[in-house]
Amino acid sequence: MANRIRIAVIGASGYTGSDLVRLAVRHPHIEIVYLTANSQAGKPMAGVFPHLGQLGLPDLISNDEADWSRVDAVFCGLPHATSQEVINALPDHLKVIDMSADFRLRDAETYARWYGVEHTCPELQAEAVYGLTEHYRDDIRNARLVACPGCYPTAVLILLLPLVKANLIDAGDLIIDAKSGVTGAGRALKQNTLFSEAGEGLSPYAVGKHRHGPEIDQELSLAAGRNVVVNFTPHLIPMSRGELITAYARLTDGTGVVDCVAALAGRYADEPFVNMAPVGVLPSTQFVRGSNNVLLGVIEDRIPGRVILISTLDNLVKGSAGQALQNFNLMFGIQETCGLEQVSLFP
Amino acid sequence: MANRIRIAVIGASGYTGSDLVRLAVRHPHIEIVYLTANSQAGKPMAGVFPHLGQLGLPDLISNDEADWSRVDAVFCGLPHATSQEVINALPDHLKVIDMSADFRLRDAETYARWYGVEHTCPELQAEAVYGLTEHYRDDIRNARLVACPGCYPTAVLILLLPLVKANLIDAGDLIIDAKSGVTGAGRALKQNTLFSEAGEGLSPYAVGKHRHGPEIDQELSLAAGRNVVVNFTPHLIPMSRGELITAYARLTDGTGVVDCVAALAGRYADEPFVNMAPVGVLPSTQFVRGSNNVLLGVIEDRIPGRVILISTLDNLVKGSAGQALQNFNLMFGIQETCGLEQVSLFP
Amino acid sequence: MANRIRIAVIGASGYTGSDLVRLAVRHPHIEIVYLTANSQAGKPMAGVFPHLGQLGLPDLISNDEADWSRVDAVFCGLPHATSQEVINALPDHLKVIDMSADFRLRDAETYARWYGVEHTCPELQAEAVYGLTEHYRDDIRNARLVACPGCYPTAVLILLLPLVKANLIDAGDLIIDAKSGVTGAGRALKQNTLFSEAGEGLSPYAVGKHRHGPEIDQELSLAAGRNVVVNFTPHLIPMSRGELITAYARLTDGTGVVDCVAALAGRYADEPFVNMAPVGVLPSTQFVRGSNNVLLGVIEDRIPGRVILISTLDNLVKGSAGQALQNFNLMFGIQETCGLEQVSLFP
Amino acid sequence: MANRIRIAVIGASGYTGSDLVRLAVRHPHIEIVYLTANSQAGKPMAGVFPHLGQLGLPDLISNDEADWSRVDAVFCGLPHATSQEVINALPDHLKVIDMSADFRLRDAETYARWYGVEHTCPELQAEAVYGLTEHYRDDIRNARLVACPGCYPTAVLILLLPLVKANLIDAGDLIIDAKSGVTGAGRALKQNTLFSEAGEGLSPYAVGKHRHGPEIDQELSLAAGRNVVVNFTPHLIPMSRGELITAYARLTDGTGVVDCVAALAGRYADEPFVNMAPVGVLPSTQFVRGSNNVLLGVIEDRIPGRVILISTLDNLVKGSAGQALQNFNLMFGIQETCGLEQVSLFP
Repeated sequence: MANRIRIAVIGASGYTGSDLVRLAVRHPHIEIVYLTANSQAGKPMAGVFPHLGQLGLPDLISNDEADWSRVDAVFCGLPHATSQEVINALPDHLKVIDMSADFRLRDAETYARWYGVEHTCPELQAEAVYGLTEHYRDDIRNARLVACPGCYPTAVLILLLPLVKANLIDAGDLIIDAKSGVTGAGRALKQNTLFSEAGEGLSPYAVGKHRHGPEIDQELSLAAGRNVVVNFTPHLIPMSRGELITAYARLTDGTGVVDCVAALAGRYADEPFVNMAPVGVLPSTQFVRGSNNVLLGVIEDRIPGRVILISTLDNLVKGSAGQALQNFNLMFGIQETCGLEQVSLFP
Repeated sequence: MANRIRIAVIGASGYTGSDLVRLAVRHPHIEIVYLTANSQAGKPMAGVFPHLGQLGLPDLISNDEADWSRVDAVFCGLPHATSQEVINALPDHLKVIDMSADFRLRDAETYARWYGVEHTCPELQAEAVYGLTEHYRDDIRNARLVACPGCYPTAVLILLLPLVKANLIDAGDLIIDAKSGVTGAGRALKQNTLFSEAGEGLSPYAVGKHRHGPEIDQELSLAAGRNVVVNFTPHLIPMSRGELITAYARLTDGTGVVDCVAALAGRYADEPFVNMAPVGVLPSTQFVRGSNNVLLGVIEDRIPGRVILISTLDNLVKGSAGQALQNFNLMFGIQETCGLEQVSLFP
Repeated sequence: MANRIRIAVIGASGYTGSDLVRLAVRHPHIEIVYLTANSQAGKPMAGVFPHLGQLGLPDLISNDEADWSRVDAVFCGLPHATSQEVINALPDHLKVIDMSADFRLRDAETYARWYGVEHTCPELQAEAVYGLTEHYRDDIRNARLVACPGCYPTAVLILLLPLVKANLIDAGDLIIDAKSGVTGAGRALKQNTLFSEAGEGLSPYAVGKHRHGPEIDQELSLAAGRNVVVNFTPHLIPMSRGELITAYARLTDGTGVVDCVAALAGRYADEPFVNMAPVGVLPSTQFVRGSNNVLLGVIEDRIPGRVILISTLDNLVKGSAGQALQNFNLMFGIQETCGLEQVSLFP
Repeated sequence: MANRIRIAVIGASGYTGSDLVRLAVRHPHIEIVYLTANSQAGKPMAGVFPHLGQLGLPDLISNDEADWSRVDAVFCGLPHATSQEVINALPDHLKVIDMSADFRLRDAETYARWYGVEHTCPELQAEAVYGLTEHYRDDIRNARLVACPGCYPTAVLILLLPLVKANLIDAGDLIIDAKSGVTGAGRALKQNTLFSEAGEGLSPYAVGKHRHGPEIDQELSLAAGRNVVVNFTPHLIPMSRGELITAYARLTDGTGVVDCVAALAGRYADEPFVNMAPVGVLPSTQFVRGSNNVLLGVIEDRIPGRVILISTLDNLVKGSAGQALQNFNLMFGIQETCGLEQVSLFP
């Protein structure tokens, strides 16, 4: 294992943590040194996630049992608010890839309003780089602390940023109808994510109140050069993994659907993980399950002057652990696709 | 069985036909005389739908085996194009409730364009009453031929018609993101409705091309008093039954969200099957499964001046067989809720 | 509402309670007077179960708010151990249909061993009649306290009791492979019943330890006239409702598969809710969903001298609330099928 | 791509073919030269399986377009009966890994009886090696034609062969209750595998008639040294991938459950893909999804002298394409785990 980068996964007992482990354990330049989960400390990882048996993983420990001098990088999968304090206490030599929500919002006040608590580390908040790989690659390469975007913002921003930046669509009239599988709600016990409640049915939720709304606003505002507020309407879909965004936009004067296609295809031509759906195929979550891929589609609206924009990804991979690993690769000068070549699992 | 109205179900081997039978067999004023299905003629109904065993149903026959003099009313669940010819050949004394698409569009040219064939019975097309019960009740009461709306149009129109009629929302800027369970595609064998393809995933389909688009346009145009074209974007959801509409509308000047709530609540106050979701609850397909109910919700958009409108129903009940039976009740002077009191099945 | 029997549902916030309400609210001879749920007291029922809106139901109250003099019968859907104390405190004029596990086992010691607590009301335990309707009809008719069987035992015993009683199969060699939907685990929050954990997969659980094992033993021992211990192996299936039993038995000398078919068909010829699957059709949970029906099948084994026996039911209906209502009908001299005529919901 | 083994996948438009491609495209010693599918010839693979886009795969061709001199090995995923003729026509220099059923049965007469057609290549049938890797490793290493076992037989035989060989269980009294996800039925259009029919429910099927029955008999008979006929009862489960076997066996005299555990643990101690479930965990399909792993469990029966044996695998991986690739590795002297290291995908 010489020459491997030594990592720890903090908060390894949740779905993002376990999916990070799934990917990292096969990464040729990674050695997993610690898996932490305070509530499950002492257990073998396979006792908490039996699909991760036989992989030679370290047992779960509590956070304070780790000797951080033995570690080069930390992936953090803790809940928001918890995350910032734990990361703040880590020694400086560690590079940190945070999969929580704590450093996504650049503005302390916005954070306080949407997350209901004051941010305790505003200086770290200022330092953190927003980890949307395809759009902040240079910053990520040099960052010490990367805040990986939420799953929804990743899908939305990859789809809309190039179009807003090129002023092809009106950033003031963006309807974002979002659909997510149930893993998006995490492993915490909630009545509405029980199989009997979420199965065989479909529910809108957190309409107008979802915390990914202001995160999307923040990045689209930067791109548009003015204050943007979007419609963002999430729905819970009876599937475990996967996320699909159907966005409805007004084309700016003189712009056609083909311009949108060209802008997206051009912008992502060299990106390994972002692709346009083949002609005649609409993006579908099944086509990206388990992979780090994003699939985009552009369709003419029946209403003249409008366009329908679609993107899909696996919320636990490109929407979380996969993008985190992609950022890790960048931060350590490793080929960006390394450890992320898994082909989508279909059916 | 004296005094019962004698019915036949034409096309009883599909899902709409079988759900009609499920309801009709318990209707106190109905006697099921014939079940027809040309391709399955000779089989017992329980051989084709084992859940309909032990109900004393007649065996399936082919259409031309029926002695129509023994029948008072016909429910037709045939595919489009087939339906019109079969209905045209029926004797005049029969009242007909058509669950197919053949008589929903009032305009022969629109029909030809969207269904790819010329309509062969334009005079019947002109006679047919559009069977959206809550909005055409008087016409239905006196009709001989009722064309039950598509499942999507039912959900959309119940939600939007009162708001468009009252000019509370801009009919020229309607985004309709529609989600349906897989039974919406019928019992025909298609690759994309196999369990392995439709399960654990979500797909947009027929975007900009779905035949329910012009049907929605037709009714909203009538309501608005001008030509309306809507965005209509259907998605296939991994569930069997259920449909949910998330519509995005621009409020007209001076209108607020509360006006929309008031308009819908007022319009449907006396309707037995249409209700506003309770405060704090968003409509969800699980809450109407198996029943003839529609549940509506109105939510403030994050974008000022816009509103989010939601409706949900069971596509096979209020979206098809249930509404057909509701219309039957009207046509025969029976209490409208008769045979439709099933409580939703949850979980 | 004159002449209606006034009922209360104790523990109305669980799935068995809500399914009882779904059925009872349409029962022509029932008036629902109270719905109790201590933890949810004060809420409208539709706040806890939105599918039960618009039904004129009373709000939830705590148990001690009820004036029992206004009530004729009580359905109890509380968890085991709780149930016995609550029922013991009820006044004597009430007939009680208990859907919990507290009075199913006749032997106090067996109860203590399997449920981990001493039974506090052994005299009630002795009084209680085992509510397997088709096999204890006369006792139920005259009972004050009926203990409705568990969902699995209902499916197993309807299938096996006639064969064991007639000595057609060897009661000492019964393998019972049981499969249940996730509602069988109730509405309590557990990690293994989250959608993300129970979906897209299948798990055996509680193998050799499930509390329905001794309940099955008890009844088969009575039927066989000797001590019977069965194999009972439950599996959690990714569906909400439904239960299917595949039992493997050794035929006694001289017995053939046709004898088993004849015995079951004969025994249940006049039973409204128990039927043999049509020729060429195997029982499947889809065929009984939402109804009070049981479907049975008998198939020749490849191993000579053995037989495969199948039964299926909806665990929340015939496996719980439906059978409870069937027993209520018996106890009050009402037609046994009253309020239970719902046709299965398929698809 | 020098030094890579050049392969073709015949029948690449089915699920086993596509899953083989998913694995092979990342295999460091494989070059995919041809993908054939007569009915889809001319299409890009991503047109038939959009999840396989962006992988640089060759377009689909018809079988007779292939220049076999450019190929070293062939994977065949055709339906039975078709497979034998196609394989018979291939040149001798090709190593063939057949994933169809055509060469699994060693006896021509048994084949004819169960598959309804005479075998046309009995000499190939005699030559073929049964590709149950862990039990025929040496034969496979030297084979030209390997017949990969059915998905069910793989799961059953890995579980039972060591116990039957060691005479720990009675081979004459084996009950095999088998549960499979819907992909087991392939991509062909069938009514019972539609989402609306297979979803939210569970069905036994092909009971006593499944073609994997004689295949299991064949191998267990060889192991037992006498003619064995097993009970084999498959059930269709509403999930796409995964298979779980619950087998019920009688222990031979003097044998205990611990002997079974020891025998299985010992037999598979050095096997990379076969493992005992961790203590306290029962095998579950979720834990092996997408991987080549088999998970085994042994549990004491409530009936003295009996034991419950469980195994689970992904029917498309270890049950088909994965085991095929494992055999390929063996045949070409490659590390057996090469290309098969994917960690299970959970949730």
